[in-house]
Amino acid sequence: MIGFGDLLRLKRKEFGPLCLGIDPSETELNNWGLPDTANGAKDFGLRCIDAAEGRLGLIKPQVAFFERFGSSGYAALEEVLQAARDLDLLVIADAKRGDIGSTMLGYAQAWFGDDSPLRVNALTVSPFLGPESTLEMLDHARDVSAGLFLLAATSNSEAVALQTATSNNQSVAMTVLNAAITHGSNDLGVVIGATQSLKEFGLQQLVDTDLGVPILAPGFGAQGAKLADLAELFGASAPNVVPAMSRGLTGQGPQAMANLIDRAKLEL
Amino acid sequence: MIGFGDLLRLKRKEFGPLCLGIDPSETELNNWGLPDTANGAKDFGLRCIDAAEGRLGLIKPQVAFFERFGSSGYAALEEVLQAARDLDLLVIADAKRGDIGSTMLGYAQAWFGDDSPLRVNALTVSPFLGPESTLEMLDHARDVSAGLFLLAATSNSEAVALQTATSNNQSVAMTVLNAAITHGSNDLGVVIGATQSLKEFGLQQLVDTDLGVPILAPGFGAQGAKLADLAELFGASAPNVVPAMSRGLTGQGPQAMANLIDRAKLEL
Repeated sequence: MIGFGDLLRLKRKEFGPLCLGIDPSETELNNWGLPDTANGAKDFGLRCIDAAEGRLGLIKPQVAFFERFGSSGYAALEEVLQAARDLDLLVIADAKRGDIGSTMLGYAQAWFGDDSPLRVNALTVSPFLGPESTLEMLDHARDVSAGLFLLAATSNSEAVALQTATSNNQSVAMTVLNAAITHGSNDLGVVIGATQSLKEFGLQQLVDTDLGVPILAPGFGAQGAKLADLAELFGASAPNVVPAMSRGLTGQGPQAMANLIDRAKLEL
Repeated sequence: MIGFGDLLRLKRKEFGPLCLGIDPSETELNNWGLPDTANGAKDFGLRCIDAAEGRLGLIKPQVAFFERFGSSGYAALEEVLQAARDLDLLVIADAKRGDIGSTMLGYAQAWFGDDSPLRVNALTVSPFLGPESTLEMLDHARDVSAGLFLLAATSNSEAVALQTATSNNQSVAMTVLNAAITHGSNDLGVVIGATQSLKEFGLQQLVDTDLGVPILAPGFGAQGAKLADLAELFGASAPNVVPAMSRGLTGQGPQAMANLIDRAKLEL
């Protein structure tokens, strides 16, 4: 059976690594002249998918911006996900879920259930309850050719102290990366903010060696990182990076998106 | 304006500290002879609320077990939350959300928005992106007299290495507790699994001194901790503990719940 790593490789080959972040926040909906409602979020998502069609292989909807409308927001997300499935786009749901084993099974049923309306190709997961607490979910993801991205070094400044804390001389970020190396098979990736110094987080090994671990890297565009700097930032691991960009591609309205996507792809 | 800490105190005074965990997992729905559907989860939640009425002041629905049915699961959760509001039960949504600032605003709108169908009295939050990344959300919670519980020392065994990692000679768990002490006002609590040794997590200070920080403590019942041991486990901070119990109260079916709740209250 084909795995998430294979699907990712195929999409990269056809469209390059760029991933469109779909963030229907209040600000973005206002920018686009859309109502700040579940319907507005749905229209935002569907227009993003229109722009991605034929240009990109990957999208990353931010679940928080749908959840803010409750069940109608989830219904909107489900329509956006269905549209993405119809176009064979790979979907990384950015939900940062994380809980103890029996509860993680609930999340696995949501995001990787065979008939779940929320089924996606990959999910971002928070390893605060220990990276190993996510392994049972990984099994469920694999059953549907999907994968996980564990948060390792996030793009926000408040994250540094916690994610660089050490246990047995190893940073939290490195412990997470190690779990991905040990248990993954191109389907257990990590999230590393492109705004951070990998060395500071104890992740220099990743810069020096190609470890083959998929890396989802938010922080490009509005948060400050430049696509042109990706190779320098991630060094030997640059070929495994999926750079995610949201406002940098959507912030000038729906008409500008296609051009901004084309331009961003040229920078990579 | 009355704050979450005041609401919590009033409920404790009237009903004691016990909190009923509402976990409509596949296993629990099967146990109860309910269908494993959104409607089954709704019936499970509503019957839990019936049993809580007049007996308990606090409930803790586990969002994962509603999310597994997508938007219809969220619609079921919304009905359960409305029933809880109608009975003036305090609701702690166990969702363990955590993200960077702009995204946390989305979650704040979901769980603390004035007219949000998901509005609750408190939310569990994951501090993996740094405890400070949750403070803006705390402001929004306060606007509606609500609070947050930050994960500090969770009840699962895989959590120990990460949550005991140190930075400036302080464990991750203690860093989270410190953030609650510094920024809270009886409305920023912590989650500490009753199955853990507080000393091992660097939280001995909590056992020795009453710091006034609300503590949500899962792990009672099916996970192994005993209510009768609460005082010993939390020492000086025991009066601030909200013990949460799920399967221990619901696992013998709906008819047994009221009796099990009454019996559990006697142990406290």
